[in-house]
Amino acid sequence: MLIRDARGDDWSGIWPFLREIVAAGETYCWPPDTSEEDARVWWMGKAGGRVFVAVDEAGSVLGTAELHPNQPAAGSHIANAGFMIAPSAAGRGIGRALAAHVLDEAAHDGYRAMQFNAVVETNAGAIALWQSLGFRILATVSEAFDSPTRGLVGLHIMHRMLGRSPS
Amino acid sequence: MLIRDARGDDWSGIWPFLREIVAAGETYCWPPDTSEEDARVWWMGKAGGRVFVAVDEAGSVLGTAELHPNQPAAGSHIANAGFMIAPSAAGRGIGRALAAHVLDEAAHDGYRAMQFNAVVETNAGAIALWQSLGFRILATVSEAFDSPTRGLVGLHIMHRMLGRSPS
Repeated sequence: MLIRDARGDDWSGIWPFLREIVAAGETYCWPPDTSEEDARVWWMGKAGGRVFVAVDEAGSVLGTAELHPNQPAAGSHIANAGFMIAPSAAGRGIGRALAAHVLDEAAHDGYRAMQFNAVVETNAGAIALWQSLGFRILATVSEAFDSPTRGLVGLHIMHRMLGRSPS
Repeated sequence: MLIRDARGDDWSGIWPFLREIVAAGETYCWPPDTSEEDARVWWMGKAGGRVFVAVDEAGSVLGTAELHPNQPAAGSHIANAGFMIAPSAAGRGIGRALAAHVLDEAAHDGYRAMQFNAVVETNAGAIALWQSLGFRILATVSEAFDSPTRGLVGLHIMHRMLGRSPS
């Protein structure tokens, strides 16, 4: 597996599993029927953003991440990021490898911390991964996410400093 | 003073003081030199958003607020809002009146709660106002805002439920 910066032509490898994850509606606040063009702009077109892919030896995209400033200007030294792993490639450590890569790149780019604004509290695998990488839950916004299967559940705000080893 | 929904032609009354507040750089994560066209889109053009103005008897705009979903889709039942009061009209209760109006409208529109993601911790007047209106500080993201006069200060995440009286 190789992790590298995405190119424009990686989108065709990202969209099939990104669409599947968004359509499930359990982990992202995106409309489940988000169009391909909207999805491409949201994932690949954020101001000041970078996009990464994890690819296998045949060049197939197994996962993707995007890194961008959490706020503009006076808040732009705090990073935000999003991660999508192909469900068919789950359990192979791709999320952890992508996360480590993006944390390194974010620190290298000068971000002082990374913040997630909306980690669905039922997304146990993601939360465990982030905690193992040094993220803390700063707060939980109760009833902030309308899950198609569980109703209203909370959204965690998670955070870790960069340029320091995970606590 | 009258508070009403903004019309497109209110922008010319909003921009002079909005520009002044953004240029000061102490309360919003916007580039201090934000162009008028970018500012208009950010304030007036949010997806699913509404804009309000407080005007005096002569029709001059003294303050403005914008109300929009904090997240799309599965998070769209939580509101976010922004407030700008003309510095020349400070101390007249315009912020409090606008805030009360927007909270009422947000509840009427079906939002279940209101969340602020980035209240600068040195903005004592705003924080006191929000707390008096029932908002709680859910968390403070340390060193998340680069103040031109104070350096790195924290950003509060504030929240209150709607459709209930302030606690």
